[in-house]
Amino acid sequence: MTPHVSNKPTTTMPFGRVVELPGHRLDVPATEPLRLDCGIDFAPFTIAYQTYGRLNADKSNAILVCHALTGDQFVAEPHPITGKPGWWEHMVGPGRVLDTDRFFIICINVLGGCMGTTGPKEINPATGKPWGLKFPVITIADMVRAQVRVIDHLGIDQLFCVIGGSMGGMQVLQWAAAYPERVFSAVPIATAARHSAQNIAFHEVGRQAIIADPDWCGGDYLERGVRPHRGLAVARMAAHITYLSEAALHRKFGRALQDREALSYGFDADFQVESYLRHQGSTFVERFDANSYLYITRAMDYFDLARDYGGVLANAFRGTKTRFCIVSFTSDWLFPTAESRALVHALNAVAANVSFVEIETDKGHDAFLLDEPEFFATLAGFLNGAAEHRWNGTRR
Amino acid sequence: MTPHVSNKPTTTMPFGRVVELPGHRLDVPATEPLRLDCGIDFAPFTIAYQTYGRLNADKSNAILVCHALTGDQFVAEPHPITGKPGWWEHMVGPGRVLDTDRFFIICINVLGGCMGTTGPKEINPATGKPWGLKFPVITIADMVRAQVRVIDHLGIDQLFCVIGGSMGGMQVLQWAAAYPERVFSAVPIATAARHSAQNIAFHEVGRQAIIADPDWCGGDYLERGVRPHRGLAVARMAAHITYLSEAALHRKFGRALQDREALSYGFDADFQVESYLRHQGSTFVERFDANSYLYITRAMDYFDLARDYGGVLANAFRGTKTRFCIVSFTSDWLFPTAESRALVHALNAVAANVSFVEIETDKGHDAFLLDEPEFFATLAGFLNGAAEHRWNGTRR
Repeated sequence: MTPHVSNKPTTTMPFGRVVELPGHRLDVPATEPLRLDCGIDFAPFTIAYQTYGRLNADKSNAILVCHALTGDQFVAEPHPITGKPGWWEHMVGPGRVLDTDRFFIICINVLGGCMGTTGPKEINPATGKPWGLKFPVITIADMVRAQVRVIDHLGIDQLFCVIGGSMGGMQVLQWAAAYPERVFSAVPIATAARHSAQNIAFHEVGRQAIIADPDWCGGDYLERGVRPHRGLAVARMAAHITYLSEAALHRKFGRALQDREALSYGFDADFQVESYLRHQGSTFVERFDANSYLYITRAMDYFDLARDYGGVLANAFRGTKTRFCIVSFTSDWLFPTAESRALVHALNAVAANVSFVEIETDKGHDAFLLDEPEFFATLAGFLNGAAEHRWNGTRR
Repeated sequence: MTPHVSNKPTTTMPFGRVVELPGHRLDVPATEPLRLDCGIDFAPFTIAYQTYGRLNADKSNAILVCHALTGDQFVAEPHPITGKPGWWEHMVGPGRVLDTDRFFIICINVLGGCMGTTGPKEINPATGKPWGLKFPVITIADMVRAQVRVIDHLGIDQLFCVIGGSMGGMQVLQWAAAYPERVFSAVPIATAARHSAQNIAFHEVGRQAIIADPDWCGGDYLERGVRPHRGLAVARMAAHITYLSEAALHRKFGRALQDREALSYGFDADFQVESYLRHQGSTFVERFDANSYLYITRAMDYFDLARDYGGVLANAFRGTKTRFCIVSFTSDWLFPTAESRALVHALNAVAANVSFVEIETDKGHDAFLLDEPEFFATLAGFLNGAAEHRWNGTRR
């Protein structure tokens, strides 16, 4: 039985209002469950995704873009809830690095997300209520398994490229390890083969901030008609600091005061950096679900690719024919270059085809989302080389 | 009029129980107010302090130890609330680096603190209720002004040394800048002449976590018979990550699981690092007041020594005869070595007597509280040299 496909995905807004989203949906029926890492056979569920450009006749020009923790499928168009530009608009489009005149770009809202794909805020068919904490704990591998359903549905045997930064990069690595024949090239950016103790620690702070909010209600906030806005905002603020570098914060804000000439001797946001962080927290809660934040951070914490391959990372890539381009940023302290080097060493150990570039920037982890000329030039060069091998040459 | 001195300080526990503390108290009467940076003349108030060793006949052997954000005056004895060892017990005692057979060690709970010195949890005499947010916003300079009252009370003209790490180091710098004749030697450790944008940002996350807790009650929680435990615990967890290095977290915890063989696929503390952080949060709230946390972090954020000296840090130390020993730690990313170098440059610019040591360690900012042999040897060497100049030689 083929999954039912209707045209438009939807997302459930608080509290119960259903909003139609741009893009596409895949409804996976109860008869075709996904076997999750936790052991549960999960179905039915819906996957929301968006595409840009056109799939060519032999379906060989597809690029899967994997989004990060708080990203979604709206890569190259205004966000339907916030109206802000797509999160990689300067990367994806006609004549851009991910050229929609040439490539068919797919981006899939991750399983457990909150932008049309089934996650904890959507309705659990077994109860008629939002899933909440009854949603199964999912992993990066589960997210990728769900994505495979979409790629199968589109009839694509092999993706020309799988690309993504941060948690998106974890998905890229999982794709390359689990489905090497389906990934011609892979670009894991600002990522790691496993989440570090420090990163788990920061995630745990965010989760505890959400759980500490009485409006979280043990995860059942939507049923109770409330939302843990304050906890989620604190979680976002803490995380946001880790996305920037000390140098970037210093350059952008330093100790500059916000709308005042002198210190207030109070607890208002005297400093611009305080005001900026509060803004980051308060805007985030408008578009993101607190329980999704718990689940997706957990999936990142659980990611440890080597563990599934006898503790040896290189084994994850043994025999791979995928062409890799690994990118890190000098000032990224969340996913420092050492993590990328560990990947390069593992790939070298199995004689994989791998390029590695460390981009000089003071913009921190966020650099992968920003308009960094050297970064863009690197990706363009890699994709051109890969395209030449794919369509003109022989595959190495 | 001399301030009234009784023997024992007290601290008000939640909710209203008054506990007698070891050590000493100085009661500053309403007739001798402290002019605070915010413009308020503050009095009456109480300062709680502790001493170790004996003041010599000419009162020349006193060392003032300045505590950090969540420290207190119990440097070298079990904490009266938690029973844990003093926070610098391996540094202070007979035969130790701060040798109580030789020196008279003083440590003063900072103004705004919560261990006997007047702070937001103590009773506001004007209302008969806890101060809460009616407590004035204080600065590092205000803390030092309050400390001067104790040093005056003890009849000490010049401190042989003022020493402290982190916020304690800020106080050391403030002492050396504002009272150069009263500071023979100064040891600012793991500190900075101004709080960075990133550090302000982390503090703001902690404050927002507290303020977001409904049990904070606009600061009036003690009156309402509650405490913002959850918010304060989240604040502590976020801060605690910044006290360690990524390497230390990796070495101590890595991705090791807590009391289990496999991932739980739930939101329990699967990883040891999560369990450790939760423990840090939950034990902290037993001994620390949430409003004190707001006030003291604010004081650190406001610290910018150059600002009070025409924007030129060197001017803060022009003409100083104080001997400085500046210490930083390689893996401290909260107060990185660059901050100490800026201090050294400013002191060099006015031809001050300054030693600078960067200690190699992977223990992060917390290293200043730990038993680091090279750190201890550095301090012992500096103090011996200073003592020779003070008592045997001439003051340079």
